[in-house]
Amino acid sequence: MTHLVSHSRRLRDTPFTPGVEASGVTGYTVYNRMLLPTIFESIEADYRHLKSHVQVWDVSVERQIELNGPDALKLMQKLTPRDLSRMQSDQCYYIPVVDENGGMLNDPVAIKHDDTRWWISIADSDLLLWVKGLAVGAGFDVRVFEPDVSPLAVQGPKSDALMEKVFGSVVHDIRFFRQKRLAFGNSSFIVSRSGYSKQGGFEIYVEGSENGMPLWDALFSAGKDLDVRPGCPNLIERVEGGLLSYGNDMTRDNSPFECGLGRFCKPAEGSDFIGRNALEAEAGTGPSRQVRAVSIAGDPIRPPRNAWPLIKGDQKVGQITSAAWSPDFGTNVSIAMVDKDHWEAGTELMVETPEGPRDAVVQEQFWK
Amino acid sequence: MTHLVSHSRRLRDTPFTPGVEASGVTGYTVYNRMLLPTIFESIEADYRHLKSHVQVWDVSVERQIELNGPDALKLMQKLTPRDLSRMQSDQCYYIPVVDENGGMLNDPVAIKHDDTRWWISIADSDLLLWVKGLAVGAGFDVRVFEPDVSPLAVQGPKSDALMEKVFGSVVHDIRFFRQKRLAFGNSSFIVSRSGYSKQGGFEIYVEGSENGMPLWDALFSAGKDLDVRPGCPNLIERVEGGLLSYGNDMTRDNSPFECGLGRFCKPAEGSDFIGRNALEAEAGTGPSRQVRAVSIAGDPIRPPRNAWPLIKGDQKVGQITSAAWSPDFGTNVSIAMVDKDHWEAGTELMVETPEGPRDAVVQEQFWK
Repeated sequence: MTHLVSHSRRLRDTPFTPGVEASGVTGYTVYNRMLLPTIFESIEADYRHLKSHVQVWDVSVERQIELNGPDALKLMQKLTPRDLSRMQSDQCYYIPVVDENGGMLNDPVAIKHDDTRWWISIADSDLLLWVKGLAVGAGFDVRVFEPDVSPLAVQGPKSDALMEKVFGSVVHDIRFFRQKRLAFGNSSFIVSRSGYSKQGGFEIYVEGSENGMPLWDALFSAGKDLDVRPGCPNLIERVEGGLLSYGNDMTRDNSPFECGLGRFCKPAEGSDFIGRNALEAEAGTGPSRQVRAVSIAGDPIRPPRNAWPLIKGDQKVGQITSAAWSPDFGTNVSIAMVDKDHWEAGTELMVETPEGPRDAVVQEQFWK
Repeated sequence: MTHLVSHSRRLRDTPFTPGVEASGVTGYTVYNRMLLPTIFESIEADYRHLKSHVQVWDVSVERQIELNGPDALKLMQKLTPRDLSRMQSDQCYYIPVVDENGGMLNDPVAIKHDDTRWWISIADSDLLLWVKGLAVGAGFDVRVFEPDVSPLAVQGPKSDALMEKVFGSVVHDIRFFRQKRLAFGNSSFIVSRSGYSKQGGFEIYVEGSENGMPLWDALFSAGKDLDVRPGCPNLIERVEGGLLSYGNDMTRDNSPFECGLGRFCKPAEGSDFIGRNALEAEAGTGPSRQVRAVSIAGDPIRPPRNAWPLIKGDQKVGQITSAAWSPDFGTNVSIAMVDKDHWEAGTELMVETPEGPRDAVVQEQFWK
């Protein structure tokens, strides 16, 4: 069943929308109340090209939250169990953000300008309201706002080659989850080696909407001989790689331990981050369910719109939250949340899809 | 240019989605990370039917925030400039919610169960995070969460007739913006005389997702001789009536005075609601721009995806944020934010649409 998007100002365009639409985008989702492309040629064709060449992705939906003021670091450390005390100013930190019950509110990336100025590059929830609410409620001396910053990603095996053409050979010096400020025209942007694929690449934090299309055009002009194309986070590739999607694979009902993010939950001694009591209790016992890679037997499935129950005998023991047919691995791949007693690799389960039951097997790891 | 919605768990279905899709919905928007139908037959046909008969609308996207605990009333009164002290327990209150700068965060409707238990029926922002953030930051003794409640609206001139068939003649006793708890099967739901149209009708706060389709089916079964149809907030009808849409016609950049909501900004003596200083300052001078009805000349326009600049001479003096062709009034109708020096009724302006300039005239009031 297909449905059209009804456009309105409420589903915000991005600085790159003119380029995206001139390139023939055919599908959108809405993410942080903004348009996120989902399909250009087809999910399968986009996938094949992403794994072979280089793509430019409009990921403006990764909105930034700026914390600016004397209490910025103190507030940042309230937000997350991850210890930020040794973070270098050129590092990008993946930080689970949890509520007072330890439930995931977002899984953003933090960028440190200095102790008094931070950006949080968010997944799909209005985390701005949480951060502002805390700051106002607790009387912190910090301004919290959404700056005019729209990330553009360059992803795929030829990313370094394309980026060198536009930003120079300095791009090769940027290590994984590190960033540098690089010049573009009369501006300069933070460029990080990061992105929502397993194919390598960069994210460019474009400051000033007016700089969006000039950068877009420069990348496409420089990348002609690399077969650069517009792209977007690809469902098949991200499920193969086990890249979780907030709102799909985790929600407020999940703790970071359930999401496999326990390694980011080692707070500094004495940290009073929000949710500490809940996470400490769970750290003692361990989670009762956790994210797993699960293969689904049979013909290519239609990707789920809802969580699909995972069944053992007559008992629900988990759910599949993202799934797609993988051409490269010749199976349906999925991301699931599976109860502890059934999460061992090799466990055989049944999944209830809208088109009938299928056999499913818990995997040792995601596909690579 | 048309684009498909890419469905995923992140764009949540509602308890009524099976009914909506069986009825042939053709367009969706996303609102509070949930699907909101936008078109069934066509916007024009849906409009004509809404104004003549009765429709059932899936407005589950009006998510509820529950405040539950000893500090619920104190927190509620922190959220809004509107004085809640004399609110009766059967009233529904439209309450602007503003941030520390007086910027609109949401324009929800509050429902009071008692002083210690409230619902906030929200427009399109994750207001839950703001309310939780404030409560946690300030150490309030209150639980804040999203209960399993999905509103279903009955709208149109035959609403009373349809509602009587399902809930009994008691529905006629419910006055505008008042509510009663009415029985349905083994459940009971809060039913209010309210809704996002000017055609009259009710909203039913359906508690328990499992009760959604039984109520949907009961309404359609009872309404056969009334020509009941599925519907949704209708762009033409809401612009004619001047019903503002958060995210379209107002954002965090706007104060309640700019949105024409000054009558809800008369706080109780001594109230320390958030944003008080900013709103008091603006109450003294009055807003520098405000919402206005603006007619746009010429052929039927294509509704805007973005704000369209309003021009006088060579100066931008406002913007149009929602617009549509009105068959009943034979003109393009719009909602605009217009600068003070140009907001008088009869002022002639020019609007820059993507398809060229059009003449526009500020109206005395919306169309009715």
